[in-house]
Amino acid sequence: MSDKINVGILGATGMVGQNYIRLLHNHPMFRVTHVAASPASAGKTYANAVSNRWLMDIDISEEVKNLTVADANDPVAASGKCSLVFSAVSLDKSLTSKLESDYAAAGFAVVSNNSAHRATLDVPMVIPEINPDHLDIIPMQRKNHGWSKGCIVVKSNCSIQSYMTPIYALMRSGLPIRRMIVSTLQALSGAGYPGPSAFDMIDNVIPFINGEEEKSEREPLKILGSVCGGVIEPSAGPLISAHCNRVPVIHGHLACVSVQFEKRIPSCEEIIAVWENFKALPQELNLPFAPQHPLIYRKENDRPQPRKDRNAEKAMSVVLGRLRKCNVLDYRFVGLHHNTVRGAAGGCILVAELLKEKGYI
Amino acid sequence: MSDKINVGILGATGMVGQNYIRLLHNHPMFRVTHVAASPASAGKTYANAVSNRWLMDIDISEEVKNLTVADANDPVAASGKCSLVFSAVSLDKSLTSKLESDYAAAGFAVVSNNSAHRATLDVPMVIPEINPDHLDIIPMQRKNHGWSKGCIVVKSNCSIQSYMTPIYALMRSGLPIRRMIVSTLQALSGAGYPGPSAFDMIDNVIPFINGEEEKSEREPLKILGSVCGGVIEPSAGPLISAHCNRVPVIHGHLACVSVQFEKRIPSCEEIIAVWENFKALPQELNLPFAPQHPLIYRKENDRPQPRKDRNAEKAMSVVLGRLRKCNVLDYRFVGLHHNTVRGAAGGCILVAELLKEKGYI
Amino acid sequence: MSDKINVGILGATGMVGQNYIRLLHNHPMFRVTHVAASPASAGKTYANAVSNRWLMDIDISEEVKNLTVADANDPVAASGKCSLVFSAVSLDKSLTSKLESDYAAAGFAVVSNNSAHRATLDVPMVIPEINPDHLDIIPMQRKNHGWSKGCIVVKSNCSIQSYMTPIYALMRSGLPIRRMIVSTLQALSGAGYPGPSAFDMIDNVIPFINGEEEKSEREPLKILGSVCGGVIEPSAGPLISAHCNRVPVIHGHLACVSVQFEKRIPSCEEIIAVWENFKALPQELNLPFAPQHPLIYRKENDRPQPRKDRNAEKAMSVVLGRLRKCNVLDYRFVGLHHNTVRGAAGGCILVAELLKEKGYI
Amino acid sequence: MSDKINVGILGATGMVGQNYIRLLHNHPMFRVTHVAASPASAGKTYANAVSNRWLMDIDISEEVKNLTVADANDPVAASGKCSLVFSAVSLDKSLTSKLESDYAAAGFAVVSNNSAHRATLDVPMVIPEINPDHLDIIPMQRKNHGWSKGCIVVKSNCSIQSYMTPIYALMRSGLPIRRMIVSTLQALSGAGYPGPSAFDMIDNVIPFINGEEEKSEREPLKILGSVCGGVIEPSAGPLISAHCNRVPVIHGHLACVSVQFEKRIPSCEEIIAVWENFKALPQELNLPFAPQHPLIYRKENDRPQPRKDRNAEKAMSVVLGRLRKCNVLDYRFVGLHHNTVRGAAGGCILVAELLKEKGYI
Repeated sequence: MSDKINVGILGATGMVGQNYIRLLHNHPMFRVTHVAASPASAGKTYANAVSNRWLMDIDISEEVKNLTVADANDPVAASGKCSLVFSAVSLDKSLTSKLESDYAAAGFAVVSNNSAHRATLDVPMVIPEINPDHLDIIPMQRKNHGWSKGCIVVKSNCSIQSYMTPIYALMRSGLPIRRMIVSTLQALSGAGYPGPSAFDMIDNVIPFINGEEEKSEREPLKILGSVCGGVIEPSAGPLISAHCNRVPVIHGHLACVSVQFEKRIPSCEEIIAVWENFKALPQELNLPFAPQHPLIYRKENDRPQPRKDRNAEKAMSVVLGRLRKCNVLDYRFVGLHHNTVRGAAGGCILVAELLKEKGYI
Repeated sequence: MSDKINVGILGATGMVGQNYIRLLHNHPMFRVTHVAASPASAGKTYANAVSNRWLMDIDISEEVKNLTVADANDPVAASGKCSLVFSAVSLDKSLTSKLESDYAAAGFAVVSNNSAHRATLDVPMVIPEINPDHLDIIPMQRKNHGWSKGCIVVKSNCSIQSYMTPIYALMRSGLPIRRMIVSTLQALSGAGYPGPSAFDMIDNVIPFINGEEEKSEREPLKILGSVCGGVIEPSAGPLISAHCNRVPVIHGHLACVSVQFEKRIPSCEEIIAVWENFKALPQELNLPFAPQHPLIYRKENDRPQPRKDRNAEKAMSVVLGRLRKCNVLDYRFVGLHHNTVRGAAGGCILVAELLKEKGYI
Repeated sequence: MSDKINVGILGATGMVGQNYIRLLHNHPMFRVTHVAASPASAGKTYANAVSNRWLMDIDISEEVKNLTVADANDPVAASGKCSLVFSAVSLDKSLTSKLESDYAAAGFAVVSNNSAHRATLDVPMVIPEINPDHLDIIPMQRKNHGWSKGCIVVKSNCSIQSYMTPIYALMRSGLPIRRMIVSTLQALSGAGYPGPSAFDMIDNVIPFINGEEEKSEREPLKILGSVCGGVIEPSAGPLISAHCNRVPVIHGHLACVSVQFEKRIPSCEEIIAVWENFKALPQELNLPFAPQHPLIYRKENDRPQPRKDRNAEKAMSVVLGRLRKCNVLDYRFVGLHHNTVRGAAGGCILVAELLKEKGYI
Repeated sequence: MSDKINVGILGATGMVGQNYIRLLHNHPMFRVTHVAASPASAGKTYANAVSNRWLMDIDISEEVKNLTVADANDPVAASGKCSLVFSAVSLDKSLTSKLESDYAAAGFAVVSNNSAHRATLDVPMVIPEINPDHLDIIPMQRKNHGWSKGCIVVKSNCSIQSYMTPIYALMRSGLPIRRMIVSTLQALSGAGYPGPSAFDMIDNVIPFINGEEEKSEREPLKILGSVCGGVIEPSAGPLISAHCNRVPVIHGHLACVSVQFEKRIPSCEEIIAVWENFKALPQELNLPFAPQHPLIYRKENDRPQPRKDRNAEKAMSVVLGRLRKCNVLDYRFVGLHHNTVRGAAGGCILVAELLKEKGYI
């Protein structure tokens, strides 16, 4: 236990923060020693601060219950208590940006769920199975800002995980993708709490999520980009068009994807083999949160389904199905991932595990 | 009242049959005088036959309650009672095909919800605002089969109405479509009753509907085809790729559509103007079930939505929204229609109204 | 048209206000000529003020679309425009109380959805089939306050309609009730908009509604009370115990009721006969919003159900079922009503119709 | 591992059978070595037999995947493979009754989910925290039937667990209950698969479950009864009246309960203390499936809720809340349990653990 790394959670009382606490319980590498939230919660025990707003379906872990909540705006309060913070604050964008920079300047590794730094040129946006090498921009990031040991790393928007890892697996196997059209059916938890009204979501779907299509189209290009001269140059392709829908599902974003290959069009069997055999750095390092199979292909014609497949390999796998020819582009398939685990807190914990393995914390 | 046309309903006790009874109540042109169902129901009053399986949210109309249910397999039972039958039987395909032909041979105009005759070369598949002229194959159909006055006309699968009328409106305005990718979010009532289990549909969606994608891709080509030498020649395009999903919505099929134009790419404003000004034969004839606006465009960025928009103009309009540029094809939009009214019984009643206006009954 | 009474709606842009506009379209007795809302909406046309917050499933009626929204705080703005206002404001209790009194003082008949005046001793709380005679306190109310022609009448909480009319029907037939235990399964629309989060209501129910049990137990006693010396004396019984649950249903409050009679225990047949034959003043006067059958008893063992029965007789009937012996009290049954029509705007319109018939407007 | 007891599952491919397989994975006392189902599945591997009907949200355990499915009608097939069978067959009542007797006669301990033997006088119906002593009828049961070592034990209907353990805890503390009225809001999984149609359960609840109210009222009396002269004499009380509703929840039966005490009426604090301190034989024996807290009382005013509380202590605790005075009886409260774990497979596994501890297997 003594060699675990102490970590903190900024925005610990919100739904994302609660997920961190749930997922980090008994983590072999990390121990939650610091929780911070808005000034209104500061000074209370975590259990009191969150009181009846605890939304997880397991109880608050004993180790966190009695931690005193600090003011998240104050990096000094975290000083000496932890070396990495997971940022799940819900402030407006410029305040979040400043707060995360302040923590980095104060020497903390910041792994963030927020979108504030996603477009920052020297901040890596990492899906651990796709671009773990982007973490190697950290020395340049530190130099750019004069930080001795802090850093900022972000995750992407949760909408893109259902299609980006399978797409990347194909690209890495010499099957580059030229363009793709994606329609998503996204879960309620992706909207935070309280999110959409039940009155709007019973016997209904909403064919719009504010800002989501833009993120779904743009963020993949940064993830597929390359570190070059101290910044991350986005990739030129593939071209992506996204339709984003909100559906009455608790967790699990589903994507209906049509893709066109850049060059050779592989067979169905070849694509499935690429997916089933796909492993990347997190698997090679055997990281605690790395699923054994980052991509699972289901042969039944009606899968993946959110409630039945979102928990595959502790909710860290992307589950695929229905690969078939497309009449307009080349192939169609369906992808699914657990948006609040793989697509949010779980994905960030895996990033943190990489940071440790790579010696950045 | 004396000049109303008497109509019958085959499969009158099922959900589709019930919808006919609901929608034909007080119809200015038609009066339900004959109801037929499986032999097990024959001889009972309609109210007894349907008993606690009545699924509509209004009561059975008084005029139908006490009709005696006939055996749907027996066209003779309908003889003298009506001149047109709406077919909503749920038999297997070859039995349905034979039954409908038997009624046509016995002199009845058959307007069918079933898929049995959709591929029959001389049977028109009609969306009244798109291809009312296909009804003019009826004299040839009669000649082909030696029928004196009967005929068969079918509706298309309910999945396609959300995109085919807006697409056709553009084509008719000199803006032909080359290809399109469609993702549908389809309602439960489209699966008939009982349809999917609640256990499968609460906190879940199913990215598969058996046979639906094939119909969604193929049937539009027949509807856009042309009558030629006694048969309907399907159109060569547009090329369509469909992903069909079942969602926990009671009524209302939603489609996310990306389209590529064949030639000139119009402006957003031009497309919306085409849609808002679109009228076709049913509107010109001012038919009872013709919506004043077959296409309604909503400017709010989160519409159309199934529960809020499915009832537009007595559930006979297609509601559109979110027209915007597509990164991969040319434009994207969202379409919605009420699958059991516009897409099923209501659409067939409108076809029957056309049949009367055109003198085929 | 010239002899219709002009009415106004206070809080016209909210969900309840929208319901009034929907239900008053083409009303034979009333015409909406005045709409008022918060100062932020004042000066806009109604269509602009409500813009994309219109929640009804039919469009805004043409007659209301272009009305200019007034500031609801200002009774003078309504002067000359209408003689009755439906109050659906959502202010805090003391402000609502004052606002409604101001309108009454300014000469308007106020029919209110709010709870602010429900406990006011000289304000009648009316369910039109139960206590229309309570309206006859109005002359005393006017005298108490020095109002020349204004008045205030309120509706009860929407939870109680599913059981109070059937209970009253029995009481009026010489079958007084001693006590009852009620468990309600209440719809989302009863919570206003936005109401509960979808995250809380998918795959879930909530066994608590703030303040609802107290209202469900106390308000019936006032309704069953008697006008006496210028105030309404609440009835001493029946004793009511209520458990209130929120369920993922859009409209329709269901109640599971166990009752104990005060004296004689009637037979099942007798109770059903009382319910089926029940008529009251609104039926005798044949008022536009009076259902022909205020109580409908369904014999199927699985009814009433919210989605299937809430619209009975334009959503103004209470639908009953499952009458059977109770092992603890005497009888059990299930009741249902449409909470936003019978239980809210529709019920208030029926009160207003009574006011007109009785000469109070 | 060598000292684990081998167990079999009859009806292993159905939803209840699947739950056994899910819950027995890595069980410290039992190992699944035999799976049996209908003749159609016999001879296949379990994975093949269940194929795409696997409904659990985790994968089939490796140890079970490759077991060959036997014909459940044939006790000989289980011979030598296991000493206890969990019965989850879905046959009609008389066939189930015979099948379970056949297994008992063949020397197997049968722990059954089915209702077939619930009324059999010498078959104990056991809730492990309430009447573990009823298992001591087994020697007499064996004698009655001439069985050398087999036996039959059953669980109760899943509707009653939410109220019977808290009621029993009070009775055991010298606070006997005279009568109670219960309204349940029951989950879909209680109806088996497929269960109710989604068309009936979206935007709806159903106030009826066939046979459920009778079981909810009668079975508690047997559980509270006493072993007497080779049979179980049911208790005379408490008198129970149940209203059973089906709601769109996946797992978790909720009950709204009003109770009247036989003698002294305790304080709120006293009742809560009784519940919080309640422990019984499973806790004393520290059995693997025994929750540390069989009864958990939540102080928040809106709990328990199905999705948030059903998994408390691995879904084996009953979660209580909202204790308050009742206007008609003495007290009201809300109870919740996970119907397919505590109320079905998990409860039976705990019974099996008791059987082992008591030396009956």
